[in-house]
Amino acid sequence: MTTVEAADAAARGTVVLIPAGALEQHGPAMALGTDLVRAEAVVAEVASSFPGRVVIGPSIPVGVSPHHLRFPGTVTLTTGTFAALVREYVTSLHRHGWTRFLVVTGHGGNNAALTTVAQDLLVSHPAVQFAWSPLTALAGDAVAALRPSAVHGHSGEAETAQMLHLAPHLVHTDRLEPGTTTPDQLDDLARVARDHAQPTLTLPYDRLSPNGVLGDPRRATADHGAAIVKAIVGRITAFLEDWPAP
Amino acid sequence: MTTVEAADAAARGTVVLIPAGALEQHGPAMALGTDLVRAEAVVAEVASSFPGRVVIGPSIPVGVSPHHLRFPGTVTLTTGTFAALVREYVTSLHRHGWTRFLVVTGHGGNNAALTTVAQDLLVSHPAVQFAWSPLTALAGDAVAALRPSAVHGHSGEAETAQMLHLAPHLVHTDRLEPGTTTPDQLDDLARVARDHAQPTLTLPYDRLSPNGVLGDPRRATADHGAAIVKAIVGRITAFLEDWPAP
Amino acid sequence: MTTVEAADAAARGTVVLIPAGALEQHGPAMALGTDLVRAEAVVAEVASSFPGRVVIGPSIPVGVSPHHLRFPGTVTLTTGTFAALVREYVTSLHRHGWTRFLVVTGHGGNNAALTTVAQDLLVSHPAVQFAWSPLTALAGDAVAALRPSAVHGHSGEAETAQMLHLAPHLVHTDRLEPGTTTPDQLDDLARVARDHAQPTLTLPYDRLSPNGVLGDPRRATADHGAAIVKAIVGRITAFLEDWPAP
Amino acid sequence: MTTVEAADAAARGTVVLIPAGALEQHGPAMALGTDLVRAEAVVAEVASSFPGRVVIGPSIPVGVSPHHLRFPGTVTLTTGTFAALVREYVTSLHRHGWTRFLVVTGHGGNNAALTTVAQDLLVSHPAVQFAWSPLTALAGDAVAALRPSAVHGHSGEAETAQMLHLAPHLVHTDRLEPGTTTPDQLDDLARVARDHAQPTLTLPYDRLSPNGVLGDPRRATADHGAAIVKAIVGRITAFLEDWPAP
Amino acid sequence: MTTVEAADAAARGTVVLIPAGALEQHGPAMALGTDLVRAEAVVAEVASSFPGRVVIGPSIPVGVSPHHLRFPGTVTLTTGTFAALVREYVTSLHRHGWTRFLVVTGHGGNNAALTTVAQDLLVSHPAVQFAWSPLTALAGDAVAALRPSAVHGHSGEAETAQMLHLAPHLVHTDRLEPGTTTPDQLDDLARVARDHAQPTLTLPYDRLSPNGVLGDPRRATADHGAAIVKAIVGRITAFLEDWPAP
Amino acid sequence: MTTVEAADAAARGTVVLIPAGALEQHGPAMALGTDLVRAEAVVAEVASSFPGRVVIGPSIPVGVSPHHLRFPGTVTLTTGTFAALVREYVTSLHRHGWTRFLVVTGHGGNNAALTTVAQDLLVSHPAVQFAWSPLTALAGDAVAALRPSAVHGHSGEAETAQMLHLAPHLVHTDRLEPGTTTPDQLDDLARVARDHAQPTLTLPYDRLSPNGVLGDPRRATADHGAAIVKAIVGRITAFLEDWPAP
Repeated sequence: MTTVEAADAAARGTVVLIPAGALEQHGPAMALGTDLVRAEAVVAEVASSFPGRVVIGPSIPVGVSPHHLRFPGTVTLTTGTFAALVREYVTSLHRHGWTRFLVVTGHGGNNAALTTVAQDLLVSHPAVQFAWSPLTALAGDAVAALRPSAVHGHSGEAETAQMLHLAPHLVHTDRLEPGTTTPDQLDDLARVARDHAQPTLTLPYDRLSPNGVLGDPRRATADHGAAIVKAIVGRITAFLEDWPAP
Repeated sequence: MTTVEAADAAARGTVVLIPAGALEQHGPAMALGTDLVRAEAVVAEVASSFPGRVVIGPSIPVGVSPHHLRFPGTVTLTTGTFAALVREYVTSLHRHGWTRFLVVTGHGGNNAALTTVAQDLLVSHPAVQFAWSPLTALAGDAVAALRPSAVHGHSGEAETAQMLHLAPHLVHTDRLEPGTTTPDQLDDLARVARDHAQPTLTLPYDRLSPNGVLGDPRRATADHGAAIVKAIVGRITAFLEDWPAP
Repeated sequence: MTTVEAADAAARGTVVLIPAGALEQHGPAMALGTDLVRAEAVVAEVASSFPGRVVIGPSIPVGVSPHHLRFPGTVTLTTGTFAALVREYVTSLHRHGWTRFLVVTGHGGNNAALTTVAQDLLVSHPAVQFAWSPLTALAGDAVAALRPSAVHGHSGEAETAQMLHLAPHLVHTDRLEPGTTTPDQLDDLARVARDHAQPTLTLPYDRLSPNGVLGDPRRATADHGAAIVKAIVGRITAFLEDWPAP
Repeated sequence: MTTVEAADAAARGTVVLIPAGALEQHGPAMALGTDLVRAEAVVAEVASSFPGRVVIGPSIPVGVSPHHLRFPGTVTLTTGTFAALVREYVTSLHRHGWTRFLVVTGHGGNNAALTTVAQDLLVSHPAVQFAWSPLTALAGDAVAALRPSAVHGHSGEAETAQMLHLAPHLVHTDRLEPGTTTPDQLDDLARVARDHAQPTLTLPYDRLSPNGVLGDPRRATADHGAAIVKAIVGRITAFLEDWPAP
Repeated sequence: MTTVEAADAAARGTVVLIPAGALEQHGPAMALGTDLVRAEAVVAEVASSFPGRVVIGPSIPVGVSPHHLRFPGTVTLTTGTFAALVREYVTSLHRHGWTRFLVVTGHGGNNAALTTVAQDLLVSHPAVQFAWSPLTALAGDAVAALRPSAVHGHSGEAETAQMLHLAPHLVHTDRLEPGTTTPDQLDDLARVARDHAQPTLTLPYDRLSPNGVLGDPRRATADHGAAIVKAIVGRITAFLEDWPAP
Repeated sequence: MTTVEAADAAARGTVVLIPAGALEQHGPAMALGTDLVRAEAVVAEVASSFPGRVVIGPSIPVGVSPHHLRFPGTVTLTTGTFAALVREYVTSLHRHGWTRFLVVTGHGGNNAALTTVAQDLLVSHPAVQFAWSPLTALAGDAVAALRPSAVHGHSGEAETAQMLHLAPHLVHTDRLEPGTTTPDQLDDLARVARDHAQPTLTLPYDRLSPNGVLGDPRRATADHGAAIVKAIVGRITAFLEDWPAP
């Protein structure tokens, strides 16, 4: 896209889709950049369903990952810097006329900072409509169909399945190995954090899993991944269909 | 509590409970400070169940309320200032030896900023364990027993019930009136925000309800409020029982 | 106060009174929250003298107390965070139409940061009139009548007297004990800080007094406290009488 | 001074004197930089009394002057930037071994921000001893001897006298003219600000005086200025005599 | 790369190469993301010459582009946010053991902010060695061989040539058109900015060229682009050869 | 200059010249404040050539000098604080009507932060034209005439020559001694930093020279200094002649 197409897209009131990821450990078998890969793939698929009605904005390759920082290769932004980055993406594009923004984040650690951006924009830029979306959380039924481990999540069944579908070359299938899969593998503190969704206690991931994995990624298949991605794309598509132009 | 008791409590490894509220519109019938009143009441009740094992820290009377700012009397902090405030409460107390902190927030608008605090503390103060908890979201069953309106939430059945139980003198019962109670009262944009929990779109409250209320607070009773509070206290108490001392 | 009364009060051009305190050591006998207790009591009394002409804004329970941080229980904000907090209280309320603000601070450590808020608002919000007031410093004659120790001040005669009058249940009278009362109890450095009001040298309080007290609080009486509070309220009331509506 | 002398001075435990001024209107007759001129002169005189025991640090030519910003030529720093500047001067020099710092400010608008620096350093750099001093406020008797106007202060009798003594070439004596000299020249709001030292209300100077002057500078003489400066130097010298090396 | 390879690479003392770009107008014919495309291509080529001695870190897709903000599609970060982002990339990776970092920026607007990062890291992280490099500026001779226009630069001969070589599918060759090519096309102000490299005057690009282009991109060829890229890679390779491991 | 002359100068559209320096080691023979001395001298000379067309703004005595911080006496600002300072100078003066600003910096360490100010002002204050200039870099031919050492720069031939011309009393000529003068005196890392202007690697100065000097200042003469200053003044004068009033 050049400035010519940008001028046109802004004038037409398109929605800006911004893929956000993280650069953080995904266990011994998956790439550090897994979250962005998934976010960009979903955004691309969504965009292809809305020709002329959405544009794809700049990616956010690094997110809020302090909980993974003890695993080599992880890069994290402070929440303040991440929020400033997103806000400046949005306010720059808003100058050109765009008013609707949807950040699609492959990394749940970004959720809170994205919410703070939404809150602060209400006061500083009331004409902006800022939405954000997770990935896996949109596909509850498809994930359940995987019959994941009792403890599952980061780099586990669902996330690995998505990668086997979207970017199998970024999965070292020979290295897939289970992480923490049952509550009894957790110590007392980690069990509190997992058992109680609320109150919420945030722990570094090395307290939750020695290899950084929650669940058993060996159970993932590309087919399950395709189903999960389809569910995600469906939910985001439905949202965009409903979102009225200002 | 004087510095003498504080020294003792810190040495014993107590958990610090910090009530957080908001100063924001709660419709025509309830006080601006409703959220802090509920948080402080819950904290007091929890504390009474754990004599000698918890202490009550300083309250946070103003929160993150940009979505209510078009209603008179609402005061909001930016998310950055709110987070700095919480962080400085925690790091001050951590100097005295406390390591476990639980912020109990009566206002859901604070949730994201509290999460950012938890994330940033993982790197800056790894010895701190920082947890936070909402109120009403802990009491799903008790709220459902109220049979709330199709659209319900802020200043609606559940919140009003809590106040009728905890601080009836702060409810002008003669002014209780329904706000938005059904989806058809919402315009297209507001309906998107309510229908899709995710993707998440944050709107100012005047787009959701002319009087700032979601639901019909006239259906609230003190008995329902007591049940909700009991459920909340039970959930927080269970969490504290499980939380191991470092 | 609900949003209904807030709308009315803002329209009438009322003055917003904001009580500010601190959470810091007050010696072995007085509560950590002493400064807010006094500020809120004075504000309430002032407000009762101006029915319909003032409103009470949100309290600031924690202030700038780095000099007390070596005493357990003390919580401090950095001066930047404290100033941001006050500024955001004020600018939020200014959106609703209020233009006159008076912060009444029970803690002298907040004075400088309050002044910086006043200064920065002159440029950023020229329509705001921002005033602040200390407590004890307004009651010189009434304090002198107490015949305080040669060295007196924090948690000493005057402050204890106010608490005996306003909130005797927050004073452990059996624990009242003198702190530093004469210059010869100070070391060379501390003496410089006390002898020279200007140049001004700020020291941590453990350099000034082992128990955090300056003066002999046993000499305080509730009657003296009543006289001090009366003088304070009188001075603030006189100020408000003179302050013209914009 | 080169790095050689700096190394030596730091090793000997000298006190660093930092002159601070402002660039702001001083009425039609005096230079914008008046405050720094006076501060540097006082610092030089003090330094000459303590050979080998003090060093003169870098000047701060611009201060906190938002209240003068409506008068052409005034430059102001926000309080946060001013405080950061002072803090970075101090922490840079502290790396070389200095521990005692005295900022001498010719401008009262800097007082609050200097206090916030002192407060924040207590926590971040506990080995630093940070003091600051005003000028004219140290010379109450000498100023009284001038029999200044009922309303006097900025660019008035005392400040002009100092300049006539220290830097007569920076005073356009032919342009000296009275500003506001009596309370009846003030409007209601300005009178509140002047009559009540506390509560403190900060106003822009154009509300206090059309020409930016408080008092009648025509009554100033160089002799009075010499007496004021002598008193100031005496007070600062006495402070330094008492200040023990760490 | 997974966390396994990252752990190994950090232990071996590899250099981290970070490609930085911009999202900004590149005239009617080239993609907004041109600068990142070129930076990533150069980094990939350099990395292939140093197997096992360098790693490629996360990209920076958006840079400091305020001068292009009047052209649709341009996104800019403030210099402070850009610097924070780079600093947090570096300090995160430094925790894992890396000490040498080279940011390769395809966008000259990032140069100053990169330098500020280098300066601040000298104090905050003295064990880090932080280097950065431009692209086109390294290839003076190869650019001269293009015989570019009298006025040339952004989106002109050299930049277009690189893209024709590296990513021809991102160049709309049918839209290539000259921008400002001779000084007489500039107005007085723009001529000052172009004629005087120093003193340096920064202007928005719409003052320099109506279509955002400096030079005549039609003269660019893929062969020239290959020569330019080869020169760039050569210079960076030589630098890396010389850079000793700590 | 008083506020009267300032009002007049602003109305006439004068250019504001701001001298910026540093407080940093300049070897055993030259004053810490050398850079400001040179900048102020150049600014004064330039101003004398443009009577009534320029004004001299407030000096910046301390700059960005982290690379010299291991040498006693050096004071540095972080790049963010330096930039805030410059920005607030400029925006204060812009309120009075000035639109053109030229910062003349005697210290190259300030260049990057000055550029970031220029960039950020493009968005925040589009009516401001902000330029900056180095000193010695403007006088390439005159410096070459000095036939400086193979390695030369900070506190070397050219800088010393300027000081011998402008402020010989601030040069201890008996202490002038060579620093690093040939590449073979550098270790491997330092050689990389010197040999490769780009990629750019910033090192602390103690890695480059034990006494902080690059070059042999004994070869400097006042005549060479005069020639260098003349060249600098000529370049800046030419720039100002060309700079059109808005």
